[in-house]
Amino acid sequence: MSSTFAARHIGPGEPEQAKMLAECGYGSLPALVAAAVPSAIRTSGELDLPPAASEEEAIAELRALAARNRPMTQLIGLGYHDTITPAVIRRNVLENPAWYTAYTPYQPEISQGRLEALLNFQTMVADLTGLTTANASMLDESTAVAEAMMLMRRASKAKSQVVVLDAECLPQTIAVVRTRAEAVGIEVDVRDLTQGLPEEFFGVVVQYPGASGVLREPGFYTGIGEAAKAAGALYCVAADLLGLTLLTPPGEFGADLAAGNTQRFGVPLGYGGPHAGYLVVRSGLERSLPGRLVGVSIDAGGAPAYRLALQTREQHIRREKATSNICTAQVLLAVIASMYAVYHGPDGLKRIAERVHGHAAGLAAALRGARIDVVHEHFFDTVLARVPGRAASVVAAAREAGINLGRDGDDHVRVAVDETTTPAVLDEVLRAFGAEGTVQGGSALPEGLSRTSEYLTHEVFHTHRSETAMLRYLRGLADSDYALDRGMIPLGSCTMKLNATTEMEPITWPEFAGLHPFAPAEDAEGYHELVGQLSRWLCEVTGYDSVSLQPNAGSQGELAGLLAIRAYHRAAGQPERDVCLIPSSAHGTNAASAVLAGMRVVVVACTDQGDVDLDDLRSKVDKHRDTLSAIMVTYPSTHGVYETDISELSRIVHEAGGQVYVDGANLNALLGLAKPGEFGGDVSHLNLHKTFCIPHGGGGPGVGPVAVRAHLAPYLPNHPLLPAAGPETGVGPISAAPYGSASILPISWAYVRMMGAQGLTSATQVAVLAANYVAARLAPHYPVLYTGQNGLVAHECILDLRPLTKQTGVTVEDVAKRLIDYGFHAPTMSFPVAGTLMVEPTESEDLAEIDRFCDAMISIRREIDEVAAGRWPVERSPLRGAPHTAEQLAGEWDLPYDRSLAVYPGKTAAKGKYWSPVRRIEGAYGDRNLVCSCPPISSYEG
Amino acid sequence: MSSTFAARHIGPGEPEQAKMLAECGYGSLPALVAAAVPSAIRTSGELDLPPAASEEEAIAELRALAARNRPMTQLIGLGYHDTITPAVIRRNVLENPAWYTAYTPYQPEISQGRLEALLNFQTMVADLTGLTTANASMLDESTAVAEAMMLMRRASKAKSQVVVLDAECLPQTIAVVRTRAEAVGIEVDVRDLTQGLPEEFFGVVVQYPGASGVLREPGFYTGIGEAAKAAGALYCVAADLLGLTLLTPPGEFGADLAAGNTQRFGVPLGYGGPHAGYLVVRSGLERSLPGRLVGVSIDAGGAPAYRLALQTREQHIRREKATSNICTAQVLLAVIASMYAVYHGPDGLKRIAERVHGHAAGLAAALRGARIDVVHEHFFDTVLARVPGRAASVVAAAREAGINLGRDGDDHVRVAVDETTTPAVLDEVLRAFGAEGTVQGGSALPEGLSRTSEYLTHEVFHTHRSETAMLRYLRGLADSDYALDRGMIPLGSCTMKLNATTEMEPITWPEFAGLHPFAPAEDAEGYHELVGQLSRWLCEVTGYDSVSLQPNAGSQGELAGLLAIRAYHRAAGQPERDVCLIPSSAHGTNAASAVLAGMRVVVVACTDQGDVDLDDLRSKVDKHRDTLSAIMVTYPSTHGVYETDISELSRIVHEAGGQVYVDGANLNALLGLAKPGEFGGDVSHLNLHKTFCIPHGGGGPGVGPVAVRAHLAPYLPNHPLLPAAGPETGVGPISAAPYGSASILPISWAYVRMMGAQGLTSATQVAVLAANYVAARLAPHYPVLYTGQNGLVAHECILDLRPLTKQTGVTVEDVAKRLIDYGFHAPTMSFPVAGTLMVEPTESEDLAEIDRFCDAMISIRREIDEVAAGRWPVERSPLRGAPHTAEQLAGEWDLPYDRSLAVYPGKTAAKGKYWSPVRRIEGAYGDRNLVCSCPPISSYEG
Repeated sequence: MSSTFAARHIGPGEPEQAKMLAECGYGSLPALVAAAVPSAIRTSGELDLPPAASEEEAIAELRALAARNRPMTQLIGLGYHDTITPAVIRRNVLENPAWYTAYTPYQPEISQGRLEALLNFQTMVADLTGLTTANASMLDESTAVAEAMMLMRRASKAKSQVVVLDAECLPQTIAVVRTRAEAVGIEVDVRDLTQGLPEEFFGVVVQYPGASGVLREPGFYTGIGEAAKAAGALYCVAADLLGLTLLTPPGEFGADLAAGNTQRFGVPLGYGGPHAGYLVVRSGLERSLPGRLVGVSIDAGGAPAYRLALQTREQHIRREKATSNICTAQVLLAVIASMYAVYHGPDGLKRIAERVHGHAAGLAAALRGARIDVVHEHFFDTVLARVPGRAASVVAAAREAGINLGRDGDDHVRVAVDETTTPAVLDEVLRAFGAEGTVQGGSALPEGLSRTSEYLTHEVFHTHRSETAMLRYLRGLADSDYALDRGMIPLGSCTMKLNATTEMEPITWPEFAGLHPFAPAEDAEGYHELVGQLSRWLCEVTGYDSVSLQPNAGSQGELAGLLAIRAYHRAAGQPERDVCLIPSSAHGTNAASAVLAGMRVVVVACTDQGDVDLDDLRSKVDKHRDTLSAIMVTYPSTHGVYETDISELSRIVHEAGGQVYVDGANLNALLGLAKPGEFGGDVSHLNLHKTFCIPHGGGGPGVGPVAVRAHLAPYLPNHPLLPAAGPETGVGPISAAPYGSASILPISWAYVRMMGAQGLTSATQVAVLAANYVAARLAPHYPVLYTGQNGLVAHECILDLRPLTKQTGVTVEDVAKRLIDYGFHAPTMSFPVAGTLMVEPTESEDLAEIDRFCDAMISIRREIDEVAAGRWPVERSPLRGAPHTAEQLAGEWDLPYDRSLAVYPGKTAAKGKYWSPVRRIEGAYGDRNLVCSCPPISSYEG
Repeated sequence: MSSTFAARHIGPGEPEQAKMLAECGYGSLPALVAAAVPSAIRTSGELDLPPAASEEEAIAELRALAARNRPMTQLIGLGYHDTITPAVIRRNVLENPAWYTAYTPYQPEISQGRLEALLNFQTMVADLTGLTTANASMLDESTAVAEAMMLMRRASKAKSQVVVLDAECLPQTIAVVRTRAEAVGIEVDVRDLTQGLPEEFFGVVVQYPGASGVLREPGFYTGIGEAAKAAGALYCVAADLLGLTLLTPPGEFGADLAAGNTQRFGVPLGYGGPHAGYLVVRSGLERSLPGRLVGVSIDAGGAPAYRLALQTREQHIRREKATSNICTAQVLLAVIASMYAVYHGPDGLKRIAERVHGHAAGLAAALRGARIDVVHEHFFDTVLARVPGRAASVVAAAREAGINLGRDGDDHVRVAVDETTTPAVLDEVLRAFGAEGTVQGGSALPEGLSRTSEYLTHEVFHTHRSETAMLRYLRGLADSDYALDRGMIPLGSCTMKLNATTEMEPITWPEFAGLHPFAPAEDAEGYHELVGQLSRWLCEVTGYDSVSLQPNAGSQGELAGLLAIRAYHRAAGQPERDVCLIPSSAHGTNAASAVLAGMRVVVVACTDQGDVDLDDLRSKVDKHRDTLSAIMVTYPSTHGVYETDISELSRIVHEAGGQVYVDGANLNALLGLAKPGEFGGDVSHLNLHKTFCIPHGGGGPGVGPVAVRAHLAPYLPNHPLLPAAGPETGVGPISAAPYGSASILPISWAYVRMMGAQGLTSATQVAVLAANYVAARLAPHYPVLYTGQNGLVAHECILDLRPLTKQTGVTVEDVAKRLIDYGFHAPTMSFPVAGTLMVEPTESEDLAEIDRFCDAMISIRREIDEVAAGRWPVERSPLRGAPHTAEQLAGEWDLPYDRSLAVYPGKTAAKGKYWSPVRRIEGAYGDRNLVCSCPPISSYEG
């Protein structure tokens, strides 16, 4: 067994499992599972999956799949451009577990490294666009524009429900915006903006440069700004960041906000993703920004420190009042893009842009020299050639030379130049057009549109120019942070399990990394095979009939699932069904997604035991029987319990004509034991970045496939640029790329392939065992809030701190921060119940680490008792003082406990101790004094 | 410029260079260089190299070269076996700069992580062989056996000069032993040991199992031990470590020592290297062990701590009294092999061995079933089949199926099974023999030779079984250490420059990693092309005519160069020429190599200015005119100075019939400016792990090519198994593999390819600038001991601490350790002059880091002044107390300086501070109480 991958993935070996079972009072894993999981939902028989492959076999199969992809020279453009990932960044970020196994920086003290990188990202976006406040980050350009639309709708004074999109917007953006607008009753007016704007509209989006490459005269861009202002509307520019190093930035011609993609800043094409989108606003709109925003605050010692700002804006706080559902974003990719800017600096970026532009302009001149019509006089990187009737043959000739061009109908060919384009490639392109000669440089920017303002003036963009300096900067940031490569991250509902190296290695292979999302399908046979296999396996493990891998985050999977339900009811002639029932214990994102799907949220109560209150459910169903669209439930519940009434719940909703949405966030407690598609679900989204081993990357990337029963399959997402990616009757695209974050799908593929049916089932069993072991060990010290049948929990458990808080003043936050001193990332704080900690150990932690955690929690309980006994006032206790830094140790010490207790409490080993780089961070200070770009270096002094 | 690789490799940009030049008093780089480098040695014109490639172009060319290699299924054996590198080890050790950019652990306080890994290695080797003390590590199996021969000669009581090698020894081992024996007058008697031993011999070597796979009866092995004992000789077993998990270990049948390769413990084949060899001895011989030995000692607080033990045995101390010249070994590969054992544990290793053995036994049975004669009844992993007249056709048939078998003459085929061998491969092998059927398991170990003793019982081999646990163990060890990814390592004579990621990436590609060194040449076209190109470039930059890449360390390059000189004189009928002149300032290794080449060392004095004393040279040449073989000089000198008399020196030696050996250790001060082959050298070795960017790996791997003028070319190393690897008239192999450490040659290839002539020259210029800048800034605080013309140094400078030591008692060691508190690795201590520090900043450090170092040194000087002023007694000063640990801060503090001064001295930033995990280590304690395997966990408690 220990030679199998499963034995490496699952932490506790058999002797350890036996000890843990004994603590729980069970004799075997099956006995424990039989006691914990209601028999009514158990699936019969083993999962029908291929036998588990070894790591080497899985790699060999992936190499064979990779060999069926053809990474051509990609000049297709449309928002995706080949780029050079600096090797030092690839190796030390993208391939470094210190970066990719980190969690979202909700514990900012132990996330200062990636928070700094994200602040660099925000600074980069704000500087380049000439606007004020950028978030970090968006899922892709198209959803960023959709979010911009929503932002404009709520921030605009205009009464109109019309958003105007320039016809030059990217086709996938137009399609995603349509999908999203339709659900919330916004009308999308796509038009040629050189022909003017409608009378009434709340927002307008201009692509800059346009999808065909075009750059208009400066007056065009300022004119739209003025017209928008006059209409009380807002003005969004979807801008190319590389172009902005040479072009007047949107903030200087009247834009209120900008959105786009940062992919070409060093992030591989990856057949469409993951990449970090961006959204940035002018001053005054920052509190309307969706998503995560990094800001500067101070720590308990007054030193500057980073943390997420304005979190009360976010969907998990605002629930059904939320205006966006984005949570997991694309942190790892945002880090890469920001580091690309750090590596090149403003001069380097400008040089790259000038080379790209020179190549494009030179190509246009050469084409014209060969009497080929170039449509636009002004452009940045993309040349649109008119070749009446010859488009197909030109594109085919280029393919012969290994180059993909963009075909636009029968008569036009698009050539998008990028930083990897060599003169030799351009010469080949010329020949594909039937022209001779060699491409020289040139210029084709419109007069008056050249950038004059500075950007990236902060020192960080000027000091890491050598590879040595860059390497050390990356190492230093990584060393500030706590990730899975240091120790356990027992975050309830987040499933921080092993991200195995073998799963990770293929994603940086050129054959997976180098494909353009709109490359001809024949270039991507390996991807399509992989997508097909993974889709089948996901259907098998969930009991559904069909799956779409397009949603690139859990939130997007939720939205896609709800849109499928909505479309289903409409197709059945029941458009009035718009009520979405959501238990009070649900993830806030559920409610936010329902709102974005145009539904009305009705909350269903929970019982004192934490289960959905079936009586309240029946009454709500009765009340909304005619308008009932769906219920969204999480299973096992967000309380970490296998509710016994799930089948009855489904029956009630189905009987009233509603659909059952089972949130797959907790699938790690089900795989191999039960299938949502069998026990009542009509649709689920899965989080491949939880159960299926895609690393969290510090807050993304994620993949949120939506899986449905057959009757909903016709309403899955599809894509205008790749019909094979979804049903013809689908709801439209939910992500910019046909397969969303395609390049990380090999991770989950490898996980399933190497675990096999038995391995996946064992993983679930051990995850349940680990949670029950933690509950058993800690229950004497902290009450376990909710349990299911036989007093057992599922894969996580909630520790109730409220009585202790009431008694002593010690808060969950105190315990969470004190855990840092003990060398741990805190469990989930105050979700789903305020004043509690939710612990999910996962199957990957071995007994030694789980015991280290339990010992730390017990030791902390003793510290709380000392507070209760009056040894320390809570304000001056080691709990409130946590986390403690090494710097503190070196200074004066006037606390009522000694230094050693502060930093080496309990059994904490001095050897290998993780040191928090800052003391406890004051969030409120930073929200009052909002700073969301790099602070001047002087702020760190004195 | 900043878009070129050179701009990334070279730390200071142009504005920084200007500042540094101003400090030195020069207006331009060429002016500085003209002042520093004697015009007589300057080369004319630019280097004739291909124009610098970008990183992407270089990678593309390497991919094209890689595509010309064919990594087949390798069943050739002969000491090399395919293996599975656990992905978690590949990514987190082999591809992790925290491991590969580290230096040899001469500063043990900041090397505890890799010292622990090496102690695991030593424990692993000692346990598996059943002997007592292993070193860490040897260059390859064949040189390990050669070192064993030397050890046996000096430890044996026998008077004989005969060493006996079993005819079953690996052919490359026999050949390397012959090369080495010939030079020192040892007679090698290769014979079939089943026919008995000669009467007199000092040592005997048995291969276990034999090269043909054979295992003899137990009585054979014990009988040799008894015979050796009777003859007063010693008994060495060249043993396969994987086999030893199943077989009686050498220590249990009378062996005094064992030697071998650890490659098959997870280290890629790599066309022959680098891999870690091993050498292990029984109790009583440990002080005779060559090479580096890790031992346990204690730190200033009494805590256990690791450091190199018994260093007075080593060549750099013993010089011409040395018995081995090994210094750089194969630390990175030893770490990988040790981690493979940690990952699998004893049970896992045994399971692998059983599977391998079962496959081999099953194959033998199937062959016999098909009436094919299997020569040996007993074997572990290798089956020798007799196929009269058919060997070539069987091997050819296997190649058709993608499998390389071992051909032994016309009538025998060897099949060596490894852990990657699948049943399907074995079935193909059967078919290649013309047999049908399927291979089943079996057993073919001789009775009485099964292992009964335990091994790898230490906890470390039992606690990191899950990938998560393994990952954290590796991270924890890396975090203990200081490497180039944290900051500057200004080690004089070691050239710790950037090891760029682009240079490193190709070495783990399967096309470079998967080749067997004895695979047919047609499988390795890419390698041969790369070797040819790199050889030409090295000739061009050094001014020599021919080069051999075979030596896998600088020491081996030295030996090869001296053997070429020796052979040259012999071919000229002057075998009496055996005197090697060596300046007193030389690297100790020079003298040791000369001894191993059978030469007599005569020391030449240096002047007060540090240069070679030409008067003394003339007198020594006169005295030894008839027996003069060579002079070995380093240029620039080990004092870091461009001596002006090098041409005159060469003339004097040449005129007397001697050869001039120019040690290439300091080539980083010459590239593009001067060529040893032009200014007087007949032969040089280069250190690709210094000037040519192969990372130090914590003490290896290295590559030490030997470059010669045409008259010495016929005497370069060659190899019996690959005639193309050297001249027919060569001196024999110096390494086990034809191209030594072939798989890391792409690193140096990429460096030269991406730098081009101008880049290499700039690098040299900036390296010289940086050293002179440091000298200029620090001279007011520490006298710079030696300078050359115009008061300038070359690429390094010696700071003289002796006056301060005399005045205050503060030693170089105090300063070196205090630098750790400031966040630096110390410069080279007390070499080449006791009581001094030698600083080599290299071109890769940017001005900010160089200034940080200078500031630290100046701050330390102020601390020394405080000692002088009586503020602190030296024994209780922060200098003597250094390095200080975080753990100290947390405890009582009774020192006369405060905690903050201890750990944040000068401008040391709290953010990102590197913490030494231990206090200053007492070396002598550990040498008195020698412990060279993992100490029990209990020793860390209390």
